[in-house]
Amino acid sequence: MQIREAAAEDWPRIWPFWHRIVAAGETYTWDRDTSEEAARSLWMNPAKQVYVVEDETGAIVASAFVTPNYGGPAAGIANAGFMVDPDLAGRGIGRALAGHVVEAARGAGYRGMVFNAVVETNPAVKLWLSLGFEILGTVPEAFDHPRHGRVGLHVMYRAL
Amino acid sequence: MQIREAAAEDWPRIWPFWHRIVAAGETYTWDRDTSEEAARSLWMNPAKQVYVVEDETGAIVASAFVTPNYGGPAAGIANAGFMVDPDLAGRGIGRALAGHVVEAARGAGYRGMVFNAVVETNPAVKLWLSLGFEILGTVPEAFDHPRHGRVGLHVMYRAL
Repeated sequence: MQIREAAAEDWPRIWPFWHRIVAAGETYTWDRDTSEEAARSLWMNPAKQVYVVEDETGAIVASAFVTPNYGGPAAGIANAGFMVDPDLAGRGIGRALAGHVVEAARGAGYRGMVFNAVVETNPAVKLWLSLGFEILGTVPEAFDHPRHGRVGLHVMYRAL
Repeated sequence: MQIREAAAEDWPRIWPFWHRIVAAGETYTWDRDTSEEAARSLWMNPAKQVYVVEDETGAIVASAFVTPNYGGPAAGIANAGFMVDPDLAGRGIGRALAGHVVEAARGAGYRGMVFNAVVETNPAVKLWLSLGFEILGTVPEAFDHPRHGRVGLHVMYRAL
């Protein structure tokens, strides 16, 4: 498993699991039918530092980004997003990528990292807690989950 | 005092207090030197419902917007932003505009409203609390305030 910065030409190999995750509508606050073009603009945005994980065969199995969560006087706080190919869940890929991204954000000078909208039923909540993130608060019933109904969105934070 | 939807041609009369408020760097997480063009794109964005307050002389003394705070499965939660001409603080303009905007958001079908980044030293925190918003949590030391140093950013919420 190798984690490296993404290049523009990686996108077609990110899109299949990106699309599958967003279309499932369980973890991201983006339109479930987001087009490939719109998805590329969101994820491969020049304001974002984007990473990918390659497995031993060279397949891209996960991606993440880091970007300022706010502008101006609060630009020292990072935001990040993570997607792991759902077929490869439970193998520690997300944990490895998260560790890499947290270190990269610290190295880039960010003082803290915020996730603005973590669906409270997302199994990744446990991962974030184990990595030192805390739940600052929860927007109640903010997310229409296809199986669980209306669930909350956590705001999560850790200092870097 | 009249509150109405903004038209594109209102912008040049919003910009003077918009610029003054953002340049002061005490309340908004936008670059203090945001250009007029960038400011217009941010504030008069087609995704936003924008309002202005006119005083008895027809001068524009405040503006606000409502927009979805998230997309996709969480699009039922609104975000809003408010600016009142600092020369006219303390006259109830912000309170009247906030009441109008909360009603408009409810009328548009939003179930709740979130402010993602309320600077904890902003006097408006009291106004939001008095209008039924609660502080869900605070991102510590996230905002470099020109007089108070690093202060927190509240995430505030109310159901609609």
